[in-house]
Amino acid sequence: MASAILVVTAHVGDFVWRCGGAMALHAQRGVDVRLVCLSYGENGESNAAWQANPDGARDEVKQVRRAEAEAAAAILGAAGVDFYDLGDYPMPESPDAVRRLSQTLRAVRPAAVITHPEHDPSNLDHCRAYDMVLRARMQAMAPGHGADYIVPPQVLCFEPHQSELCGFKPNLLLDISAVWEQKQRAMQAMATQRNLWAYYERVALQRGAQAGRRAKTTATAYAEAYQSIFPAVVPAFVE
Amino acid sequence: MASAILVVTAHVGDFVWRCGGAMALHAQRGVDVRLVCLSYGENGESNAAWQANPDGARDEVKQVRRAEAEAAAAILGAAGVDFYDLGDYPMPESPDAVRRLSQTLRAVRPAAVITHPEHDPSNLDHCRAYDMVLRARMQAMAPGHGADYIVPPQVLCFEPHQSELCGFKPNLLLDISAVWEQKQRAMQAMATQRNLWAYYERVALQRGAQAGRRAKTTATAYAEAYQSIFPAVVPAFVE
Amino acid sequence: MASAILVVTAHVGDFVWRCGGAMALHAQRGVDVRLVCLSYGENGESNAAWQANPDGARDEVKQVRRAEAEAAAAILGAAGVDFYDLGDYPMPESPDAVRRLSQTLRAVRPAAVITHPEHDPSNLDHCRAYDMVLRARMQAMAPGHGADYIVPPQVLCFEPHQSELCGFKPNLLLDISAVWEQKQRAMQAMATQRNLWAYYERVALQRGAQAGRRAKTTATAYAEAYQSIFPAVVPAFVE
Amino acid sequence: MASAILVVTAHVGDFVWRCGGAMALHAQRGVDVRLVCLSYGENGESNAAWQANPDGARDEVKQVRRAEAEAAAAILGAAGVDFYDLGDYPMPESPDAVRRLSQTLRAVRPAAVITHPEHDPSNLDHCRAYDMVLRARMQAMAPGHGADYIVPPQVLCFEPHQSELCGFKPNLLLDISAVWEQKQRAMQAMATQRNLWAYYERVALQRGAQAGRRAKTTATAYAEAYQSIFPAVVPAFVE
Amino acid sequence: MASAILVVTAHVGDFVWRCGGAMALHAQRGVDVRLVCLSYGENGESNAAWQANPDGARDEVKQVRRAEAEAAAAILGAAGVDFYDLGDYPMPESPDAVRRLSQTLRAVRPAAVITHPEHDPSNLDHCRAYDMVLRARMQAMAPGHGADYIVPPQVLCFEPHQSELCGFKPNLLLDISAVWEQKQRAMQAMATQRNLWAYYERVALQRGAQAGRRAKTTATAYAEAYQSIFPAVVPAFVE
Amino acid sequence: MASAILVVTAHVGDFVWRCGGAMALHAQRGVDVRLVCLSYGENGESNAAWQANPDGARDEVKQVRRAEAEAAAAILGAAGVDFYDLGDYPMPESPDAVRRLSQTLRAVRPAAVITHPEHDPSNLDHCRAYDMVLRARMQAMAPGHGADYIVPPQVLCFEPHQSELCGFKPNLLLDISAVWEQKQRAMQAMATQRNLWAYYERVALQRGAQAGRRAKTTATAYAEAYQSIFPAVVPAFVE
Repeated sequence: MASAILVVTAHVGDFVWRCGGAMALHAQRGVDVRLVCLSYGENGESNAAWQANPDGARDEVKQVRRAEAEAAAAILGAAGVDFYDLGDYPMPESPDAVRRLSQTLRAVRPAAVITHPEHDPSNLDHCRAYDMVLRARMQAMAPGHGADYIVPPQVLCFEPHQSELCGFKPNLLLDISAVWEQKQRAMQAMATQRNLWAYYERVALQRGAQAGRRAKTTATAYAEAYQSIFPAVVPAFVE
Repeated sequence: MASAILVVTAHVGDFVWRCGGAMALHAQRGVDVRLVCLSYGENGESNAAWQANPDGARDEVKQVRRAEAEAAAAILGAAGVDFYDLGDYPMPESPDAVRRLSQTLRAVRPAAVITHPEHDPSNLDHCRAYDMVLRARMQAMAPGHGADYIVPPQVLCFEPHQSELCGFKPNLLLDISAVWEQKQRAMQAMATQRNLWAYYERVALQRGAQAGRRAKTTATAYAEAYQSIFPAVVPAFVE
Repeated sequence: MASAILVVTAHVGDFVWRCGGAMALHAQRGVDVRLVCLSYGENGESNAAWQANPDGARDEVKQVRRAEAEAAAAILGAAGVDFYDLGDYPMPESPDAVRRLSQTLRAVRPAAVITHPEHDPSNLDHCRAYDMVLRARMQAMAPGHGADYIVPPQVLCFEPHQSELCGFKPNLLLDISAVWEQKQRAMQAMATQRNLWAYYERVALQRGAQAGRRAKTTATAYAEAYQSIFPAVVPAFVE
Repeated sequence: MASAILVVTAHVGDFVWRCGGAMALHAQRGVDVRLVCLSYGENGESNAAWQANPDGARDEVKQVRRAEAEAAAAILGAAGVDFYDLGDYPMPESPDAVRRLSQTLRAVRPAAVITHPEHDPSNLDHCRAYDMVLRARMQAMAPGHGADYIVPPQVLCFEPHQSELCGFKPNLLLDISAVWEQKQRAMQAMATQRNLWAYYERVALQRGAQAGRRAKTTATAYAEAYQSIFPAVVPAFVE
Repeated sequence: MASAILVVTAHVGDFVWRCGGAMALHAQRGVDVRLVCLSYGENGESNAAWQANPDGARDEVKQVRRAEAEAAAAILGAAGVDFYDLGDYPMPESPDAVRRLSQTLRAVRPAAVITHPEHDPSNLDHCRAYDMVLRARMQAMAPGHGADYIVPPQVLCFEPHQSELCGFKPNLLLDISAVWEQKQRAMQAMATQRNLWAYYERVALQRGAQAGRRAKTTATAYAEAYQSIFPAVVPAFVE
Repeated sequence: MASAILVVTAHVGDFVWRCGGAMALHAQRGVDVRLVCLSYGENGESNAAWQANPDGARDEVKQVRRAEAEAAAAILGAAGVDFYDLGDYPMPESPDAVRRLSQTLRAVRPAAVITHPEHDPSNLDHCRAYDMVLRARMQAMAPGHGADYIVPPQVLCFEPHQSELCGFKPNLLLDISAVWEQKQRAMQAMATQRNLWAYYERVALQRGAQAGRRAKTTATAYAEAYQSIFPAVVPAFVE
């Protein structure tokens, strides 16, 4: 069985800006990259779509965002996108969605789940996604919910829009230089949020500069930052 | 359009003790001061009313507290009080109330929302109010919920009853000396909670003493403390 | 009226490992020790029961755990066990359970409630239990919910499985050497979780070693660690 | 041998405002109350003395403050005052003072040391005092510095001038109502700092109000707040 | 007397990258902008100078950096640079430098001091600078060190190289769009550290994007982030 | 050039209890394991030696501890021990020792430095060691202190005696099962501190149990916990 990672985001755009590099990199290495978008971000993160179409039906906005997400996911090598369509701004609690997510965890058996950090006062949907991941993780490891229960995976939080506001403390920098071109194309597939393209290119450059200092090489041009929630078990510190 | 601030509290008494000075001060300056009380505080913060009337109907207690709040709000110059009557001790979650609050945000378009801080282990209604404000703020800024969406306002948390227990870290001290007399009258309008009058007079004096040290004047006799949640954009540090 | 303490745990096993010593010690001193288990832990903390009986009905697993909890509680001197049967992994929100818990608080009038700490990313049921205790505590102190309202009790959090992961900061070490034999027997009554016996014996020995250093005696062999949520009012620091 | 507590403050005034109640209370109970003042506070906390005597020699200011401290200590029942005269604003590091403090710890063998909290950005002398206490505590427990080494005492931090600025988190409220009159007289003995009298009376009233809520009595009029640094070993939670 | 701000940095480059915008902006407004560089950064932040001149005398490196700092300060409108030449990597403690800094504070009487944040595990010189500023601030406000003592100024910490690593929590965003061209020229005057030019241009753009969201304008292209240490006394929240 | 790690401890015993497993494991893998002991721990961590020999000269105690450390280091496969003999309880500041440590860093060029965590109120020598490591790391990376400057290594903090008291937050669990027998022998070589043998065996078992849960294997019997200070640059999350 191939190893796998699962990405869970609140809105369709989130995966591209924050962990598109990790998705492309692992897909390139043969890891099964799965993606769940809990909402289309149709209410709060599709401003250009509403501006272009002020009288448009909500379903049209959703279709636009769905198409963008599918295109971006394909560029990054993900195995499709699972849309939960929970609604956003704010996203409601949903025990059903937690159960569905736990079933995905049992089926995919990922080594790590990548999602939003715990805190974000400017966007509680992100906190909701984090909470749902932790809840689904519990449900997936419980024998009482089915004999296919799993060993609980690591949870890796990607970088939020304003890291200090969210108490985000990255302890991992992932070198994504090798897949930057893919990430950039995936960002460009998100035409509705083109206002974020330059911002997240700069984020990748800043994290790349920081990684270059630590990795003892100047070859790291682009990176993504992550915070792991659980201690990692390691066989050694130095090869 | 006049500038505005919106105060959102869990119980009717909260606005007087904690931000009555800010309300009076801004009303005096011509700012539109709006007030939402999520509950009457009838269960947990109306002890004297229940003692006076042990067999009293809950509605009578609510009426007493409503009248007190309206009187205090008038003294402070607020444009009436919007009562949501959600119940208290504990206050339930209410997506409807969040929606209603978001509509108020869209209508009032306040420069700042003043509410409870995030944490308070002794009073989870306060945390609920904070959470509802942040949730309503998201809903108000989302184009998908209506074309009258707003730029999200600053959120200012007022001082809780026991600041250290709540992790409250004030970064703003508001000089309320000029409106102290009004705040004191508003406190006295809250006859049901007369046990708090002296306590909050001392709070104002302590914050005034701290402000006096920092403001390079001994003229600050009374102040209120606030913690801003989001970074403030400023044109300069020094005039 | 005898003094009392109330223990509230998310799953049946929790009280034995984490505060079995406190229960036995206080029961021995004549304190009324009450116990609420919010769930049987049938889904997520009964692995051996499911392995032994893979096709077993959920009710059979619950019966096994119920019997174990009753046996352990009896060994520790608790006055029975109140089972709420809310389900687990994850445990749902339940305003009814909060109300029931508040009624127990009003009836028992405990000096302290012992429960889980606030944070635990690996087990949100524990956070739910903490939250329900704080919510019930509010409901129990509100005159509007009945004239038998109480002065709010101290809340003491016992040690979680991985203290640093939960931000647990113990400020009290309880010497349980005198009741260690009882605690050990109670642990052994939890046959379904025998994988935890040695782990929690070592926890008791480590806390005992730490207490021995501070208590100026080497006689403390076993201890339990607690974190108090509210400031304690004390008559003096030194006898 | 009578039990003892040791108070260590950066400046002469500190002990009166922040732990004068604890001193009087323990002295009244027969506890040996010892006091070390690391400086006279002659530079930074004697403003009135310099205003009264702008051309005065530094020694005169020190004498004034020394006399005040001795008078206040006597009122509170302390066994004299040990003045280290390290200078203030800022207070220098002093391994000699640490050694002297460790010798006092060995001689007095206090159950607790009462001193400033760890952090205070507005007054680094307070941090220096905390640091010196912890350093002296190590030196006093080391056999290599003499066979009369001690079991390390608890460290209790009293309330700083602005608690939130210092990250102060009180977990103990000491009821000082019974000795309030003594504390007030001791404050009045500090004539140089009369600007602080009312401020610290209000501090005592606020902490008293908080203690009254928790202690289930309205008889607590005055209290002092403390934060313990090390876990306390306790025999039980409820009598 | 014109209002003033004082900038204190550990190394010569620091002021340009982190608060060059604030300096230019306030100078433009007629504020007296003073600058102290505690070291030339000759050991640890002049890599290109050593590479260009591997056998060069230390004094030559210092001269290069001094010239760059003077040129940059002139571009930003500062009233010269005060070089303390304490040495770096690591910077030693220096009571003499603290005293000198306190004399500058007494002479300049700034409304705010701008310096490094408190924590930075990768660069303890920055922590030393912060510590020296707080110590000098105490010395400057103490009557015992001279009758020209000051009311203590606000301390504003500028953004460190890796904000999350330093626990930096900005609460102020300063719009520097109007002076960006000056800041960029000042950065270019620091030829020895040209490797940082692009990094800090991106920092300014990211903070500008964040400020634009909050300031309700898209006109904010460039900003700097700051964290205030002490509560600010404000006359109102809304104009 | 072989890869290397450098261990820096305050007292001779520290390396055995806290990172003896890491030392043995890396030595076994061919990594060059270097060890610096800043003091012999002769004053505060050699109680048995003083009890055995109350009139003994300090030098005799040092010799005992030196011999124990050399024996333990040999068992663990370290390349000797570098003793700085700074004295302990408390350990003084020493710019000379920082410089010497920076020269070792330049010579050894370790991939990681393993040392104490930042905070420990019960043992400030541990904080001093951490501080000296960070300071030496700066000095070692500065071209101005010599052309053999290094890329700064990761810093890994090992587990302190009481993790919660020190704010220790482990993010790495190192499986030391394969070298446990060596670690145990090294602990036994520290005859002066035999009171700690059982304590640290239990620490290893607890961390082993935690690692076993996360590593999806029950084969991890023994582990050590570490906290990394700087973000790690990683090529992927999943192999």
